[in-house]
Amino acid sequence: MRSVIPYVSQQSEQEASDWIDRLSRSMPDEQIVDFKELSIEQARQADIAIIANPDPADVAKLPNLKWVQSVWAGVERVLTDLGNRPFEIARLVDPELARTMAEAVLAWTLYLHRDMPAYADQQRRKAWNELPYRKPGDRTIGILGLGKLGSLSADVLLSQGFKVCGWSRRPKDLKNVEVYSGQDGLIKVVEKADILVCLLPLTPDTMGLLNAEMLSKTPSGAGLINFGRGPVVVTEDLLRLLEAGSLKHAVLDVFEHEPLPKESSLWNHPAITVLPHISAPTDQESAAKIVADNIHRYRATGELPETVDKVRGY
Amino acid sequence: MRSVIPYVSQQSEQEASDWIDRLSRSMPDEQIVDFKELSIEQARQADIAIIANPDPADVAKLPNLKWVQSVWAGVERVLTDLGNRPFEIARLVDPELARTMAEAVLAWTLYLHRDMPAYADQQRRKAWNELPYRKPGDRTIGILGLGKLGSLSADVLLSQGFKVCGWSRRPKDLKNVEVYSGQDGLIKVVEKADILVCLLPLTPDTMGLLNAEMLSKTPSGAGLINFGRGPVVVTEDLLRLLEAGSLKHAVLDVFEHEPLPKESSLWNHPAITVLPHISAPTDQESAAKIVADNIHRYRATGELPETVDKVRGY
Repeated sequence: MRSVIPYVSQQSEQEASDWIDRLSRSMPDEQIVDFKELSIEQARQADIAIIANPDPADVAKLPNLKWVQSVWAGVERVLTDLGNRPFEIARLVDPELARTMAEAVLAWTLYLHRDMPAYADQQRRKAWNELPYRKPGDRTIGILGLGKLGSLSADVLLSQGFKVCGWSRRPKDLKNVEVYSGQDGLIKVVEKADILVCLLPLTPDTMGLLNAEMLSKTPSGAGLINFGRGPVVVTEDLLRLLEAGSLKHAVLDVFEHEPLPKESSLWNHPAITVLPHISAPTDQESAAKIVADNIHRYRATGELPETVDKVRGY
Repeated sequence: MRSVIPYVSQQSEQEASDWIDRLSRSMPDEQIVDFKELSIEQARQADIAIIANPDPADVAKLPNLKWVQSVWAGVERVLTDLGNRPFEIARLVDPELARTMAEAVLAWTLYLHRDMPAYADQQRRKAWNELPYRKPGDRTIGILGLGKLGSLSADVLLSQGFKVCGWSRRPKDLKNVEVYSGQDGLIKVVEKADILVCLLPLTPDTMGLLNAEMLSKTPSGAGLINFGRGPVVVTEDLLRLLEAGSLKHAVLDVFEHEPLPKESSLWNHPAITVLPHISAPTDQESAAKIVADNIHRYRATGELPETVDKVRGY
């Protein structure tokens, strides 16, 4: 008999049960069980687990895993705490996720491009005042991270007339995008970026990468959008640069601690838009299908989906 | 000797002088003079005037006009007050204006689509809460007015995956857009529109067109964007429907009286985003070139640019 597949998350009971229902429907031959309801024997036998930003300590209680499949794109917590375990980790790689992220990059780029924060402030002050308009062709968007999400974001921004440059770990060729890599390349992108969009995963190399020294290199009055991971940006440095006006506004969807604690000063900062990690919500339907395909293939052939490079970190 | 061309506006001295400089550079053979500095003889001789949302009473002081060229797309005030005068009226028809308007339609559609007003409210309350995400393919945008601005807006929305329907005075064929016309057609579009975008000019037919009866036909919780003219929407009816929740949010860029008076209750309405008529600012460079071309052609051939149909109203 096949072993059950534990579902490990920190979601509410309702959310976890929605996910388990959806996953079960997409693979009726498998038995998917909430980690909290697992017997000791089931935990011992499990060779696959499905995870949704779980507490790594829970995953550690499954001693015989061959691999885990995440329904999130980011897996840095499991990777950091359990990277030395013998199981492989598959991130969610979903074209629908890339589309949603590119849409978010476009939406909040236009939010900054069309001065929505300043107009909202004017509305509060009942001020009727037209701000200078700049064409998208006179505005450069710098994208940090040019994987599937970043590349599609670049395409969508180009389609609306923006100039786009970007930074990736390895040199790559993207049509109409100036691509840089390496530390010098990062500086070049930041220096050009009227709006800097961070889509970087969290790795030892990206932790704290956007610090005061780096962020001070943007053109004056630039905008920052962080849809990657919170700790890539040094919050105190960001606050200092917003204070000095060298950055004008930041849109933050990710934070060191999530949910963002009530006592954080970011909540009511006039130059910061706080979002509750919603830039690219996982689409259950599309994710469940991809996960089911990966598991079917493994059961039939023993072949794993593309897994995370544990040294590189993503 | 050629007659001078008066420039008639209600702009600040600085703004008027910027426009006159720019226009003069684009047609060095013409002498463009601020209306306020015109001699009586110059006013008498003028056969062309360039207007920028002028006081119609000023234009009426030019007795021998053959035609006037607006640097704005909207000319309803001059048309209403001076439509019976023998001169023709040319609106600004500028592809750059259509691009900017389509960009604004996309920007504020995404603003509503991605729930930016609700997330801003959550930020004020320090609430961390993911709102349900709906794909653009499950969202219909209804565009009222499918001239050059509306047609390009439809294209841009389609490129981002939205479903688009629209209403135009006469039936027309637009790829992938369900086009309706007539009163029944208007009702069909409003009934489908999760976000209703008004780009209509102000005419006797459109005045008060979006009243309580019409606006109550949207799907529940719809959004409204008015980038056309203020009086097309009946403000009190809009407020009533926002109150009732049958409309969720309105983005208003145009008003019956502009600037919007300080005492207006719209300024601090939580479900209304007030913009100071900035959806599609005229691009001086591009407008001056178009105006110069129209005037050159007239001087050389006596041929007028396309002018406003005074019965239809635009």
